[in-house]
Amino acid sequence: MAQLDGFHMQPDEFRRRGREIVDWIADYMERVEGLPVLSRVRPGEVRAKLPEAPPRSPEPFEQVLADLDSIILPGVTHWQSPNFFAYFPANASGPAILGELLSAGLGVQGMSWTTSPACTELETHVLDWLVDMLGLPERFRGNGVIQDTASSAALCALLAARERKTGRASNSDGVPADLVCYASTEAHSSIEKAVRIAGIGDRHLRRIETDARGAMRPDALKRAMEEDLAVGLRPFFVAATVGTTSSHALDPVGGLAEVCGPRGAWLHVDAAMAGTAALCPEFRFIHDGLEHADSYCFNPHKWMFTNFDCDCFWVADRAALIQALSILPEYLRNKATESGAVFDYRDWQVPLGRRFRALKLWMVIRHYGVEGLQFHVRRHVELAEWFAQRVDEHPQFELAAPRPLNLVCFRHVGGDEVNERLLETLNASGELFLTHTRIDDRFTLRMSIGQTWTEQAHVESAWNTITASCPPGRDRSS
Amino acid sequence: MAQLDGFHMQPDEFRRRGREIVDWIADYMERVEGLPVLSRVRPGEVRAKLPEAPPRSPEPFEQVLADLDSIILPGVTHWQSPNFFAYFPANASGPAILGELLSAGLGVQGMSWTTSPACTELETHVLDWLVDMLGLPERFRGNGVIQDTASSAALCALLAARERKTGRASNSDGVPADLVCYASTEAHSSIEKAVRIAGIGDRHLRRIETDARGAMRPDALKRAMEEDLAVGLRPFFVAATVGTTSSHALDPVGGLAEVCGPRGAWLHVDAAMAGTAALCPEFRFIHDGLEHADSYCFNPHKWMFTNFDCDCFWVADRAALIQALSILPEYLRNKATESGAVFDYRDWQVPLGRRFRALKLWMVIRHYGVEGLQFHVRRHVELAEWFAQRVDEHPQFELAAPRPLNLVCFRHVGGDEVNERLLETLNASGELFLTHTRIDDRFTLRMSIGQTWTEQAHVESAWNTITASCPPGRDRSS
Repeated sequence: MAQLDGFHMQPDEFRRRGREIVDWIADYMERVEGLPVLSRVRPGEVRAKLPEAPPRSPEPFEQVLADLDSIILPGVTHWQSPNFFAYFPANASGPAILGELLSAGLGVQGMSWTTSPACTELETHVLDWLVDMLGLPERFRGNGVIQDTASSAALCALLAARERKTGRASNSDGVPADLVCYASTEAHSSIEKAVRIAGIGDRHLRRIETDARGAMRPDALKRAMEEDLAVGLRPFFVAATVGTTSSHALDPVGGLAEVCGPRGAWLHVDAAMAGTAALCPEFRFIHDGLEHADSYCFNPHKWMFTNFDCDCFWVADRAALIQALSILPEYLRNKATESGAVFDYRDWQVPLGRRFRALKLWMVIRHYGVEGLQFHVRRHVELAEWFAQRVDEHPQFELAAPRPLNLVCFRHVGGDEVNERLLETLNASGELFLTHTRIDDRFTLRMSIGQTWTEQAHVESAWNTITASCPPGRDRSS
Repeated sequence: MAQLDGFHMQPDEFRRRGREIVDWIADYMERVEGLPVLSRVRPGEVRAKLPEAPPRSPEPFEQVLADLDSIILPGVTHWQSPNFFAYFPANASGPAILGELLSAGLGVQGMSWTTSPACTELETHVLDWLVDMLGLPERFRGNGVIQDTASSAALCALLAARERKTGRASNSDGVPADLVCYASTEAHSSIEKAVRIAGIGDRHLRRIETDARGAMRPDALKRAMEEDLAVGLRPFFVAATVGTTSSHALDPVGGLAEVCGPRGAWLHVDAAMAGTAALCPEFRFIHDGLEHADSYCFNPHKWMFTNFDCDCFWVADRAALIQALSILPEYLRNKATESGAVFDYRDWQVPLGRRFRALKLWMVIRHYGVEGLQFHVRRHVELAEWFAQRVDEHPQFELAAPRPLNLVCFRHVGGDEVNERLLETLNASGELFLTHTRIDDRFTLRMSIGQTWTEQAHVESAWNTITASCPPGRDRSS
């Protein structure tokens, strides 16, 4: 198959193969509902089907496509199935997938403005659109950037806060031992990971207690900070969560800001999952007080139909972020950068290189329009409400936490063992995929409703499967 | 345009629109050669063409495609042009683009094995293929993972080294002030950035002098380490570069390993650009001594026809990496993880979530076969050799550094100002795009040859443009 002019896939072959892949994906969209949601392969099963040695010579594209169906697909857990209710969703959509395709086709590396001005400017622009769309504070306008994940956004915020508090000395001298930071006991693991990575040490991360709903208590935060200040430590960073992973608890941003502000601590707000809800004015209460936060992120790749990865991150003071992350070696110098008239987004993130991710976000927003996005967010919340009502009415099930949006935490009244077995039975059925958490130290199921194709019928079917799979036995009144 | 069943792009529309985008990309491949390589827009020009407010209602796909041509494309610097000779390439190819498309269509989030076993197992498998393909040391087999960039790989290596040296105490207690690390004066800026991020402080990064070729001197490294040890400091990490950004200098890995080993310092080898050359046995000398390194990375997204992002990273001791980066909250617990029989790649990287990037790498390797990849790597090196000869023969130009592979560093003999003006003229012509560095404190042009579609004709044309653009005047003998 070697050719005199080489081995590249020429544009005409790309046209043909591209159509095959597009059709494969369209077919996948049509049939994914019927596939077992959680992959059933055993550890090592996928690898065992792959040839041990790499191919010496080119292989026909047909063979790759055949292996996709026979080897890869059985090893896929179907995040795009309407019966996927696990974790948080990573929902995708046609316009997002095509935006990702375009981004790959253009093959732009947007580390600096000059390496593709459109990559930088569309990103700033679309993130300004989102300031309007989510009703975010004006201080974030012009100060947005796309990160891969909320983990990276939290790390960047933490680094900016670290440098601000130390007068930019920790970048050069290392981290002093008197810095302390705060997050609730319900904060995402990425906060602890960021604290470790940034050299703070998780011993200097105070886990603040929550109220009965799982939200961080401002009074407890204040007490912890005062205690640290009293012994000469320096509170520098607080990570608040709008929509915790376990139960969608909403930390009171305004109340926390009142504690942070006077004590000089950076307040970062992680709304990775829940932030999308703010597309709808009736859900904007989740962001109450956000105008006092120093940074904020949410993930269109969770609930806004934009395929992973796409986390939108804003800072109130972009200079603090850039100062923390900027390095300019000779080989990256250019006139545009030196003019100061442009953003070089490499200085807003951990890696140097970056894809043209704004393209898919732009295509999603234009395809749906604000109204279309609102429509689907509202529908998901309604489905969660419907499901929560079923749980509440059922004698053998109970709600484990309040439900502000589209996550229902519930359990069988029979105790941990019953719920663990139930979860296993459900996921083994292939008909749906749920995951769990612990709330009030009890094993709790999470019904997370946000997959693109999830409709009433899927939620009803899930509920029927759940009730049919639970053991007979005592109910709440017994 | 609202429908009763919502606003999603249905599979049949996806088929139609998908073909349009595939055709758009194929057309782009055919015409990119004729477009000005470096975008000519001025700061703010792209944004000025975008509507200030986000769309309330859905917009027709045709309008998005039209804006792609009229607004986005003029703001693109064409990394996929055969006349792109700037920085290092970020070369793409048909199979890679289609692999990225498939990955977006499947929409898998591979944070844990269980969240898509194929995502994890194909990744481990293809990275094992690459151990064979590049002739990497056996100690890396089974220990590979895909990162977004070499920056992130360096950070992960640094964190693993930090935790190993401190007996895993710095994750909990913070970074002690006695840790020191090393890289040459020519090391990439990402090393310094990682040192800052990880809380080491760049004051504790020793920049080791290089030899005349720009390669780190083991004797100088040894001296620096001994000095640090003598005053009670703890050397814990050395970043070596195989193919520096400025000039493709090759740090002597074996010689550095001899210094690191007895002193307990982790040796990380960054071959982001040059590593791909090891596909060809005749270029494997670049990795001499790699069997003594603790970690290694190279970027298929630079020179191996795999669109950004895709950095392949291996460690000799995966436990050190995992211990540094692992956190397991309740909501991520699952049987497969607890069995210990699987990898959860979230513990091998900074973020939690991850795309199915192995798919595109798998498709590239199968499309080209090892022979196809070798063919194109050799061709690029031959083109660089041809170009270097032209420089060497020309009275007004000189080579600024040795050329081990596909990067030619050269300059006009007329001095910095002449070269700066020349670079500006060339890039303004739109016919090619070059960037610069400083070598021996002189402004130097870099001709980096590795774009997918670059052929002899493009390099000849570049050379003709360069010589035609340089001022008349004194030559080397004058």
